[in-house]
Amino acid sequence: MSESRRVDVIRVTAGQTRHTSDAAAVEEPLEIRLHDRSFAVIMRTPGRDRELTAGFLLAEGIIDGAGDLGAVEHCRHPEHPEGHNVVNVFLLGEAAGRLETTLAGRRNVLANSSCGVCGRVSIDSLKTRALPITTATTIEAEVLHDLPDALRARQAVFERTGGLHAAALFTMDGSLVASDEDVGRHNAVDKVIGRLLLEERLPLTGHVLAVSGRTSFEIVQKAWLAGVEVICAVSAPSSLAIDLAAEAGITLLGFVRDRTFNVYSHAHRIRGV
Amino acid sequence: MSESRRVDVIRVTAGQTRHTSDAAAVEEPLEIRLHDRSFAVIMRTPGRDRELTAGFLLAEGIIDGAGDLGAVEHCRHPEHPEGHNVVNVFLLGEAAGRLETTLAGRRNVLANSSCGVCGRVSIDSLKTRALPITTATTIEAEVLHDLPDALRARQAVFERTGGLHAAALFTMDGSLVASDEDVGRHNAVDKVIGRLLLEERLPLTGHVLAVSGRTSFEIVQKAWLAGVEVICAVSAPSSLAIDLAAEAGITLLGFVRDRTFNVYSHAHRIRGV
Repeated sequence: MSESRRVDVIRVTAGQTRHTSDAAAVEEPLEIRLHDRSFAVIMRTPGRDRELTAGFLLAEGIIDGAGDLGAVEHCRHPEHPEGHNVVNVFLLGEAAGRLETTLAGRRNVLANSSCGVCGRVSIDSLKTRALPITTATTIEAEVLHDLPDALRARQAVFERTGGLHAAALFTMDGSLVASDEDVGRHNAVDKVIGRLLLEERLPLTGHVLAVSGRTSFEIVQKAWLAGVEVICAVSAPSSLAIDLAAEAGITLLGFVRDRTFNVYSHAHRIRGV
Repeated sequence: MSESRRVDVIRVTAGQTRHTSDAAAVEEPLEIRLHDRSFAVIMRTPGRDRELTAGFLLAEGIIDGAGDLGAVEHCRHPEHPEGHNVVNVFLLGEAAGRLETTLAGRRNVLANSSCGVCGRVSIDSLKTRALPITTATTIEAEVLHDLPDALRARQAVFERTGGLHAAALFTMDGSLVASDEDVGRHNAVDKVIGRLLLEERLPLTGHVLAVSGRTSFEIVQKAWLAGVEVICAVSAPSSLAIDLAAEAGITLLGFVRDRTFNVYSHAHRIRGV
């Protein structure tokens, strides 16, 4: 289980374009089942899934310690390679006894007792059912180079606290449409997209979503549902963010800083690349 | 609704100690209700709650656009000041029609129809029921100064991808016990604590949890449940992380870099401070 994956990128530096490859941190969903029933799906870097599951269940109050944990096993079925993304847990003692009460108080439980499902129901359900974005508004590389500074200029609270993520929406000529900050990366994106939604301006054809940090699966999914054509991030994308952007028809850029950036998908919207 | 709050800190630089104040990004829970029933609680920076809610519901597939949204209102009840942390949403059209099906397929719905509850049930349920940590193993400031480098040295995949968060556990003399990386900040902490849990080494009295990024409410909660005495973060804590660390009896440090750090709570564990 590798923690990084080679991906093809186009690196753009001061007007020069180079096809190369880069390493992306692997992000995949892990479905945690309690006694064969779906409990939670979390996005994670594969590896140490048993440890992750134990720590997660402690924090969620499902177990109080090692004594409550019986088997913690990956789904094993030769025909279902995605079984490495499903962990089934058997609880012991008091934790097992209170399982029904715990689950009833939390969420409805999906009945996925067959290994044949191997997480498909829950993991596929993460994907949006939107159609790929086929509009192709173009943007100058020069505009993209300037976005991080424009985003940073809006990060008033970050300057004071060092503690907030920012997201902003720009038109393809670099005009700011909306921006927001939040302790949560996803929240900053939700605030910006939600504002345009309330103004009945979706889909966001002809817009770039700029984010101050990394790009995960969920950021791309949110952009997709809003019809955003280009995502521009100051830091790295995850492997799943790259895959989803390719599928969604979204132009995904990462490491947009110091007059250079990487293009991970659908470079056709960038003029001169 | 302010996005930052003044907090008291002890700033330690090269053996010098200074009592001062700093700004922390505000983090508070927002409970989102659909037709008066609890749907989700998310940690966020207050402000633009209507926009956040609209964007969140779009991403979650509850609404498809502005036409599905009726009123989006904060809970208004003069006796319940925490009403600003509760938003109630009324859906229209198809979204309203499919609400029962949507909720049934997702999670059990709490019946909180009375405004008198004002989110208490769901928001209070976020807090752990653990007792405050009263052990007081001490640590040298010099050891704390060295932890970020030790953590960074373990971040193998970050160096390649720029995309992973790290967490590590050290003893009070600075010996590394366990470390891990993940695309998710919380996952890296879960992996490290989960590993010690599986080895039946909880509670983690006499240990420091070091994290590569920011400290949120959830990071402190995870540390508390595991019995960690000191949290040492390279970046900023949120307001709620500071409040929870104070309540939990945990020594919380932030901006631990370049031979300086801020102490936000329970400084008595740091020798010479």
